[in-house]
Amino acid sequence: MSSDDQQDPTTGQRSGRLIKAPEHFLDPEGVRTVFREARSGRRDFIRRAFAGAAAAGAAPLALAQANPVPADGGDPNILNLPEHTTGLGQPVVTDGYGKPSKYETNVQRRQSPGLTQTTQASVSFAPLQSLFGIITPSGLHFERHHQGWWDIDPSKHRLMLNGSDPSLMKTPKVFTMDEIMRLPSVSRIHFIECGANTAVEWGNVAVPTVQYTHGMVSCSEFTGVPLKILFDLCGVDYRRARYVLGEGADGSSMTRTIPMELVESGEVFVAYGQNGEMLRPENGYPLRLVVPGIQGVSWVKYLRRIEVGDMPYGAKDEAVHYMDLMPNGLHRQYTNIQECKSVVTTPSGGQVLLDKGFYNITGLAWSGKGRIKKVDVSVDGGRNWRPARIEGPVQNKSLTRFNIDWVWDGKPALIQSRATDDTGYVQPTYRQLRAVRGTRSIYHNNAVQTWLVQESGEVKNVQLS
Amino acid sequence: MSSDDQQDPTTGQRSGRLIKAPEHFLDPEGVRTVFREARSGRRDFIRRAFAGAAAAGAAPLALAQANPVPADGGDPNILNLPEHTTGLGQPVVTDGYGKPSKYETNVQRRQSPGLTQTTQASVSFAPLQSLFGIITPSGLHFERHHQGWWDIDPSKHRLMLNGSDPSLMKTPKVFTMDEIMRLPSVSRIHFIECGANTAVEWGNVAVPTVQYTHGMVSCSEFTGVPLKILFDLCGVDYRRARYVLGEGADGSSMTRTIPMELVESGEVFVAYGQNGEMLRPENGYPLRLVVPGIQGVSWVKYLRRIEVGDMPYGAKDEAVHYMDLMPNGLHRQYTNIQECKSVVTTPSGGQVLLDKGFYNITGLAWSGKGRIKKVDVSVDGGRNWRPARIEGPVQNKSLTRFNIDWVWDGKPALIQSRATDDTGYVQPTYRQLRAVRGTRSIYHNNAVQTWLVQESGEVKNVQLS
Repeated sequence: MSSDDQQDPTTGQRSGRLIKAPEHFLDPEGVRTVFREARSGRRDFIRRAFAGAAAAGAAPLALAQANPVPADGGDPNILNLPEHTTGLGQPVVTDGYGKPSKYETNVQRRQSPGLTQTTQASVSFAPLQSLFGIITPSGLHFERHHQGWWDIDPSKHRLMLNGSDPSLMKTPKVFTMDEIMRLPSVSRIHFIECGANTAVEWGNVAVPTVQYTHGMVSCSEFTGVPLKILFDLCGVDYRRARYVLGEGADGSSMTRTIPMELVESGEVFVAYGQNGEMLRPENGYPLRLVVPGIQGVSWVKYLRRIEVGDMPYGAKDEAVHYMDLMPNGLHRQYTNIQECKSVVTTPSGGQVLLDKGFYNITGLAWSGKGRIKKVDVSVDGGRNWRPARIEGPVQNKSLTRFNIDWVWDGKPALIQSRATDDTGYVQPTYRQLRAVRGTRSIYHNNAVQTWLVQESGEVKNVQLS
Repeated sequence: MSSDDQQDPTTGQRSGRLIKAPEHFLDPEGVRTVFREARSGRRDFIRRAFAGAAAAGAAPLALAQANPVPADGGDPNILNLPEHTTGLGQPVVTDGYGKPSKYETNVQRRQSPGLTQTTQASVSFAPLQSLFGIITPSGLHFERHHQGWWDIDPSKHRLMLNGSDPSLMKTPKVFTMDEIMRLPSVSRIHFIECGANTAVEWGNVAVPTVQYTHGMVSCSEFTGVPLKILFDLCGVDYRRARYVLGEGADGSSMTRTIPMELVESGEVFVAYGQNGEMLRPENGYPLRLVVPGIQGVSWVKYLRRIEVGDMPYGAKDEAVHYMDLMPNGLHRQYTNIQECKSVVTTPSGGQVLLDKGFYNITGLAWSGKGRIKKVDVSVDGGRNWRPARIEGPVQNKSLTRFNIDWVWDGKPALIQSRATDDTGYVQPTYRQLRAVRGTRSIYHNNAVQTWLVQESGEVKNVQLS
C-alpha cells in the first residue's frame, strides 16, 4: 500500500455513525457517504483520537431502513452488494503454488537503472518500503549475481570437501544432495546483507527510495547442516586448518575465505532450505553457505566445494573487490562483519503522507555481531530520540522489526533511526563514519539514514553531514 | 527432495580420495567414478561414520594429472564442465517476483481426491513432507474456503466495527485499509490449523501421506493491528461486551464468536501482512483476523465487520459445523483451542528410505495453549522414547521444529512423536483420545501419529490402537 504502488489513494471513512443492520454494510448510500467524505477531506479522526481530543464525528445517521431485503424473494442483489459477497469464488489449487494479489504487482524487486553494465553481473533490490515483519518473501529477496543465476539439477549437484594440503583433512568426501539431507539439520532465521548495500550514499548520491538505499538486505529462515558436522566426518585437523574456502559452481568462480572460528562456533551451515522450501535458484539452489553476520558475498551460492587451509586465500573477490579504501590510501581487507545498522522503512523516500495525524513509524535493525538491544528514533534530525518498540523474540544476526507512534503536525520533519547491539556498539552518523573511514569507500556503509518529510507530505532522501 | 517428488534417486559419492587440484572437480573421470560407485551401491559411509566404525574408504587416487587445462588456450571446456560453470547465467529481475526451481514443481498444495463435492467449498493441503523449519511459504499455505477465494480491491475494502446494541460501543467506525495501516502494528509468528485437520484419521482411514493427514496446518509471520487498539478507539464497554463476532466479505457469510478475553490479552489482531508481504488472496487479502491458538475457521478471511455483543452468537458455523459429537450423544460447542499436537514429517507416509544407516528424523509440534516444552520420539511404536532437539527460539502458539538422530538397522520401525506444552499437557494416544471423545468426531484430532518404516524402506501410515 506504499505510494509508489500506484494504488488508488482513496481513503474515505465514516465515523461516529450508528449502523444497526450489518447486512447494510457497503450499501449504495453508505458507499456514497464514504466517497463524499473522502473528497471533502474529512478523514482526521485517527489524529484526533490519538491526540486525545474529544471525538466530534458527524451526526449519527441511521442506515438501517435503506434498501431492505425484499420479502418477496426478488432480486437478491437489490442492495448492490459486491460480487465477492454474492458469487461463487475461485476453486482451491487454482495454482498448486500460489501468487500474490493482482493488486500487488508493483511490489517487485527492481534494478537500479545504470548501476551495472550488464544485467547478469548485477543487483536487484528488495522493496523494503512494502515489506512487513522480518521475513523477506523469497520472491522478493534481493539478488546479487557475478555471472547470472542458474537452475542446477540437484540430482547431479555434488559438494566436495578437501584440504589445501592432504594433511589438513583426513578423509576428503563428495556428498550428493540426498546424503546432505540425511544429516542432522538446523533451522535459523538470519539476515543477509551485501557488503555494498547503501554504497551509493558514500558519494552523497541520494537515491530516491529505501529500496535502492537499503534493499540489498533480506532475512529468511534457513535450514541446513552445520559445516562443523561435515568437517568432523572428514577428519579436519582444527589445530592447523584455521581457514575455510567456499567455492560456487557458477561461472563467476566465487571464492571467499572464512575464518575457522566461525565454523567452530556452530553458526556456519550449508543450507538447502529457505523460508520452508528449497532455496530459490537466484539464491543458490540447491546449496549455499550461510555465514551469519558476514557480508553476503561469503554466503557462496551453488556451493560445490569447501576447502580447509592454513592461511587466508586472498581470492580475487577479497583481493580486488569488497575492500575499503581508507583515508591513508591503504585498504581494509577481509572486512567481513556487517556492523550494526538500521533504517526506517515507513515513512521513507518516495512515499507521501496523505494527511497530518497519527502514523506508525516502522523499520528494520540488524547487527552482524549479535542481537539488537535497542533502536532509538528521532523526528528532528537527531536532536531528540525516543526508544522504539522492538518486535520479539529478538534473534541472533537477524533482522529485527521496530515500531514507534508518531503524530505528524504537518511541518517538515527529519526522521532517523539509530540501533544499538548487544555488544554496546552504536550505529554511527555519517560524520562519525567518515571521520574514521574517509569518503572513498564503496562497501560497509552502516550510517544513520535520514528521511525528510516535507510539508507537502512527500518524503525525500537527505544526508545530514 | 522427498520421494514423491519423483526425483532422480542417484546418490553416488566418492570418499576417502585425495584430490589436489580444485579445478578438476567433476572432471570426466571423477563423474564416471561417482556414477560407478552409485551403481555398485557403495554409499554407506554416513552410516559407518555415525555408527562409530572405522572409515574404510577406497584407496587414495590422484586425479590432479587428468585432463589439465591446455596451456595453448585451446577449447576451455576440454574438462567437460557443466554449462553453469562455463556460461553466462540468467539476468537479475528475470521476474520481479521470483519462483521456485523447475526441479521443485512437484512440491505443491494438493486436493484430496473425492474429499469435497465442490472445488470452491474445499481444501488444499500443504506439502509438509517437503517443508523445512517453521515458516510455510505463502504459495504452499493450506487453503480452506467455504465459497471459493476472491482477490478483493483493497482501495474499496472497508472494516466496520459496531455493537450488537448501540450501548456496547460508543463510536462505531468504518476503516479504510490506508487508515488501518497507519495504526500501531505488531508482527508475530503463529500457526493456523483447521479444526478438521487429521479428520479422516478419526475413522481409521489411513490416507497415504502427511500432506493429507496433517497438511491443514501452516505457520506464518503475521503483521497487523491489535484488535484491542481498534476497540479502544471505538469506545467498547468491556464490562458488558464479552463476545466478539468476526464477519467475512465473501459469499460464505463466515461468522465466528470469539471470547473478549482473547482480545483483552492483546493476542488477537487484524492482519494485512503475511510472511513480509500483503496477505495472499487465498488467505483473506486484504484483511483477516488472527486468533492465535484458535482453530482456523475463527481467523475470518476478507474481514469486513467486527461486532461486540453480550452473548455468544451461535452462528451457523458454530451451531452446525465445527462441533464434536461426544459418546453421550451431545455436542461439544465452541471448542476453539487447537490442543498440543505433533507429527514426524520425515520419514513419513509415501517416502522411501533408500538405504540403512543414519537419518535425521524431523517434524513439527504446536500448541494452541502456549509454547512447546518438549517433544519425545519413539522408533518402536511407543515403548521407548528419546527427547528430540528443539529448534529455538520456541515461540508462543507457533509451529516448532524438532530433529533427532536415528540409525536405521533395516528392520521394520514404528515412528512416533509426542509433544508436551508449557501447561504440562501431553499429546494423547488414539486410545486416550477415544476414551474421552469416542469415535464419531470429525474435528480436533490431536492424537499421536504412527509411521511404519517397512523393510523395503517404504513408509506407511498405520494407526496403533
